Amino acid sequence: MNNNAVLLIHCPDQSGLVAEVTRFLHERGGNIVRLDEHVDQQLGRFFMRVEWQMDNFEIESKEKIRKIFLERIGHKYDGMYYEVHFMDYVPKMAVFATKASHCLYEIIYRTQSPSENWNVEIPLVISNRDTLRDNVEPFGIPYHYIKVEKDKKEEAEKKQLELLKKHNIDFIVFARYMQIVTDDFISRFPNRIINIHHSFLPAFIGPKPYHSAYERGVKIIGATGHYVTNELDAGPIITQDVQRISHKDGVKDLIRKGRQVEKIVISEAIRLHLERKILVCDNKTVVFD
Amino acid sequence: MNNNAVLLIHCPDQSGLVAEVTRFLHERGGNIVRLDEHVDQQLGRFFMRVEWQMDNFEIESKEKIRKIFLERIGHKYDGMYYEVHFMDYVPKMAVFATKASHCLYEIIYRTQSPSENWNVEIPLVISNRDTLRDNVEPFGIPYHYIKVEKDKKEEAEKKQLELLKKHNIDFIVFARYMQIVTDDFISRFPNRIINIHHSFLPAFIGPKPYHSAYERGVKIIGATGHYVTNELDAGPIITQDVQRISHKDGVKDLIRKGRQVEKIVISEAIRLHLERKILVCDNKTVVFD
Amino acid sequence: MNNNAVLLIHCPDQSGLVAEVTRFLHERGGNIVRLDEHVDQQLGRFFMRVEWQMDNFEIESKEKIRKIFLERIGHKYDGMYYEVHFMDYVPKMAVFATKASHCLYEIIYRTQSPSENWNVEIPLVISNRDTLRDNVEPFGIPYHYIKVEKDKKEEAEKKQLELLKKHNIDFIVFARYMQIVTDDFISRFPNRIINIHHSFLPAFIGPKPYHSAYERGVKIIGATGHYVTNELDAGPIITQDVQRISHKDGVKDLIRKGRQVEKIVISEAIRLHLERKILVCDNKTVVFD
Amino acid sequence: MNNNAVLLIHCPDQSGLVAEVTRFLHERGGNIVRLDEHVDQQLGRFFMRVEWQMDNFEIESKEKIRKIFLERIGHKYDGMYYEVHFMDYVPKMAVFATKASHCLYEIIYRTQSPSENWNVEIPLVISNRDTLRDNVEPFGIPYHYIKVEKDKKEEAEKKQLELLKKHNIDFIVFARYMQIVTDDFISRFPNRIINIHHSFLPAFIGPKPYHSAYERGVKIIGATGHYVTNELDAGPIITQDVQRISHKDGVKDLIRKGRQVEKIVISEAIRLHLERKILVCDNKTVVFD
Repeated sequence: MNNNAVLLIHCPDQSGLVAEVTRFLHERGGNIVRLDEHVDQQLGRFFMRVEWQMDNFEIESKEKIRKIFLERIGHKYDGMYYEVHFMDYVPKMAVFATKASHCLYEIIYRTQSPSENWNVEIPLVISNRDTLRDNVEPFGIPYHYIKVEKDKKEEAEKKQLELLKKHNIDFIVFARYMQIVTDDFISRFPNRIINIHHSFLPAFIGPKPYHSAYERGVKIIGATGHYVTNELDAGPIITQDVQRISHKDGVKDLIRKGRQVEKIVISEAIRLHLERKILVCDNKTVVFD
Repeated sequence: MNNNAVLLIHCPDQSGLVAEVTRFLHERGGNIVRLDEHVDQQLGRFFMRVEWQMDNFEIESKEKIRKIFLERIGHKYDGMYYEVHFMDYVPKMAVFATKASHCLYEIIYRTQSPSENWNVEIPLVISNRDTLRDNVEPFGIPYHYIKVEKDKKEEAEKKQLELLKKHNIDFIVFARYMQIVTDDFISRFPNRIINIHHSFLPAFIGPKPYHSAYERGVKIIGATGHYVTNELDAGPIITQDVQRISHKDGVKDLIRKGRQVEKIVISEAIRLHLERKILVCDNKTVVFD
Repeated sequence: MNNNAVLLIHCPDQSGLVAEVTRFLHERGGNIVRLDEHVDQQLGRFFMRVEWQMDNFEIESKEKIRKIFLERIGHKYDGMYYEVHFMDYVPKMAVFATKASHCLYEIIYRTQSPSENWNVEIPLVISNRDTLRDNVEPFGIPYHYIKVEKDKKEEAEKKQLELLKKHNIDFIVFARYMQIVTDDFISRFPNRIINIHHSFLPAFIGPKPYHSAYERGVKIIGATGHYVTNELDAGPIITQDVQRISHKDGVKDLIRKGRQVEKIVISEAIRLHLERKILVCDNKTVVFD
Repeated sequence: MNNNAVLLIHCPDQSGLVAEVTRFLHERGGNIVRLDEHVDQQLGRFFMRVEWQMDNFEIESKEKIRKIFLERIGHKYDGMYYEVHFMDYVPKMAVFATKASHCLYEIIYRTQSPSENWNVEIPLVISNRDTLRDNVEPFGIPYHYIKVEKDKKEEAEKKQLELLKKHNIDFIVFARYMQIVTDDFISRFPNRIINIHHSFLPAFIGPKPYHSAYERGVKIIGATGHYVTNELDAGPIITQDVQRISHKDGVKDLIRKGRQVEKIVISEAIRLHLERKILVCDNKTVVFD
């Protein structure tokens, strides 16, 4: 996958788009290895992901591709949104955590496991507690404990943002980070903060979803990976998974069984993000997996 | 299963209950074929289901079993709730429907299919539309069209209740019956009205859940079989199931995919009810499947 | 979907294929509503499905599209396989059954249910028993009982083939048809006989898979929808699904639980076939759902 | 769970067993916290698991319970098999691995994670390679590299057995250990070696199941946790799980997706073994979860 490029587009639907984009790439020597498209009939909107080999592609730099694509195609289509990604770039991911180790651990393991083939680097872990330091530092990852005091959230976020900037962080993962961040913080990483919520959203928004699930007596629990927006637990959903439970399961069992689902869901959301398979529009995702 | 009896109990937990109940049955010649028990630690409550063969059991009538059980065991335990069922009795189930045929159809098919082994009879189908008559009458089941006018709900329910009484109906299934019934109606069939809600409760309570699911952009939809209580879509959940969806699915696809889940879930809820495997307590179910 | 056309292609992979095909359609006024492509890296083979609106398409007949496509594109690519389908054509499906009614029933229900939106007609049901006649004729579908005697299989198949020809059957579904058909019969419907096998293939090939599953003590059972080839239960798999079981389930329970999975799997396979979403190559399927 | 005891029984089915066992425990002050029973109709065999609190139980030692139970109950029932376990005993588990780290890692993580609540100790990891040393020693677990040469398997196993004996190992987990062990080795740990096989058994027995699954074109892959017996991949199945795949997945994807299933399945099998929820009879398991 290393020397491929990915183009993500969405725009009002119209005839000829696929033909035009594929010709644009083909004529410049770009061998398409994968193409996905989708038309949202309700929105009247067209979504596309094209991945092509850069080996013999005549335009080599991302900036130039962007410029030429805009001149030849982009400017003709009102309201077109597009991104270009080079897969040889290694994104920098910051992981935020609090007390629970299972998601953090799974993420570190997958990042370091060659067979997972995750194209990512973790320059730092940030936590509002000092609890997980020993789970992180042995892997050679710096651990930053930044206390978040009730009335001084902005102060803490200022420190966080400095670290994120210093390390050129591309996107953030909230690996069971038990703090609500400010709108200002979120606005700096649009569709670039992935959160795991430990319920099958929109059921059980907010804290203690397993307790609520137990009280309600549901027979299936779940977890949701989504991008963070200003509205709590209401951002675009990337992926969800579920787990069957029964009357035998107390709250502790739900927490234990849920952790397994959470690990899978957050890993899946990160993988899809890294492989540039997600387009966001109208608070929903198109996932070309 | 024909000549078995089932005892369902729940009461405050205490030592020796299983020993006492099993001895009671054993000493009277009742061979236990299945026993399930559960202690809800949070409620401090004990639940049990025992099924035994009546062939050589010395007490033959349900009323006598109930009386002797009460004298020997029941009276010693404060707050004990119990039911006795004879499996050779064929329960009478009324099915309520509106326009959608899929659940109704599945229920009729399973009722008439020997291999499903459902011990049940459908003396009548009641509907607030005349639409499904041709789906029902060919199977030899009477179809009653009772119009439910906005301000005359009680009037319609009066007619329904007369029919239910006349046919000695034991329990009711709302097979996508699109009417909210009165508290009075519900109070006459406590834990004996099974409803299918076409969402993964408590997500998307109320009408048009597939539209809401589409709007929210969830990646999994579901259905819930539950007993009807006075609070809308909030009764004890019997069973739930889910189905994975994607951005490719419009509302119509969700409806189509959902129907498959609904059919399975309502059939499962009916089967569990017929096999006397459900105990209800504190608005939750214990399902001994 | 009514006035759309579908082009299915597979051929050795090479650069520029998507561009060429999409331009071909676009230049002739064909608005693409859906495009899927896949490159099988191991086979070095390219697969594509394009669906476009015929409303303003300048070539109107299937034969002409085929001819012009061959002249302009097809002939340039060695080893290209392609099919063109018009979605306003209603395929004719023959259903073969024996004793079990659940798959047959489900298929008839879905065919007749408007909300399933199946674009298909069932001109006849053929069975080697007379058992299911009453399950079929009330729906207005002719039922043909053709006995298959041990040493006279060819004779029976001759009668079957005459009926299939007479009714211009496009494809066949074996809805738990408990007969092995001859290679000659199969060769007349290449990738056009869909079979449901009541196990998770390749586990438990052959008869009585639920008995074998019970003997082996598996914890999950399944069903497989596949195209029939000369090798028993070894044809290209279209879709599979599974169901969790436990030690509580005897053979009868496996059969009962399995039926539910079989119904879903066979319906899914038929839907995919009708929507022209399946390409077969090298005894495997590419399913663009 | 700490001060509970568990009794596991199976024997030819007969009336009165539950009554007798529960009375035996109740009369000696044992408060039953959980009871599960199952009658295998085909085998005519009764299975039971009872868990009770030892706090006020009048017999305190495992040996004495065993003796008294035998005198009062066991001797009356021909062919009764039973085990008694005290949950305050911490079993010693040896983990065998080769090159793949994912199962090993998951097991170590869960063993050390308080919220998993695994009652187990890992005194050592044994491997036929030196590859995974750095994945194990940082957790404070000794890593033993014992080379297994083709013609000197017995020699290697002798060393392994010495280590197992020295550390009082109770049971073994093959966490993707890529060696076939001798019958002699297996006979020393009957129903006490848990293996993870990376397929949905009995499909794809033997090596390279993901390659075989890819070749066959299945749409679902799986993993199986089972006890090791003399016949390869044919021991009693404890638990299985599956994962949906598609034509997009090459062999590498199957391996990657399968690892996730393997981790879950092996963890589940170990948990069930530790909680004494498994009974083995006739090469099948009864799992009281």
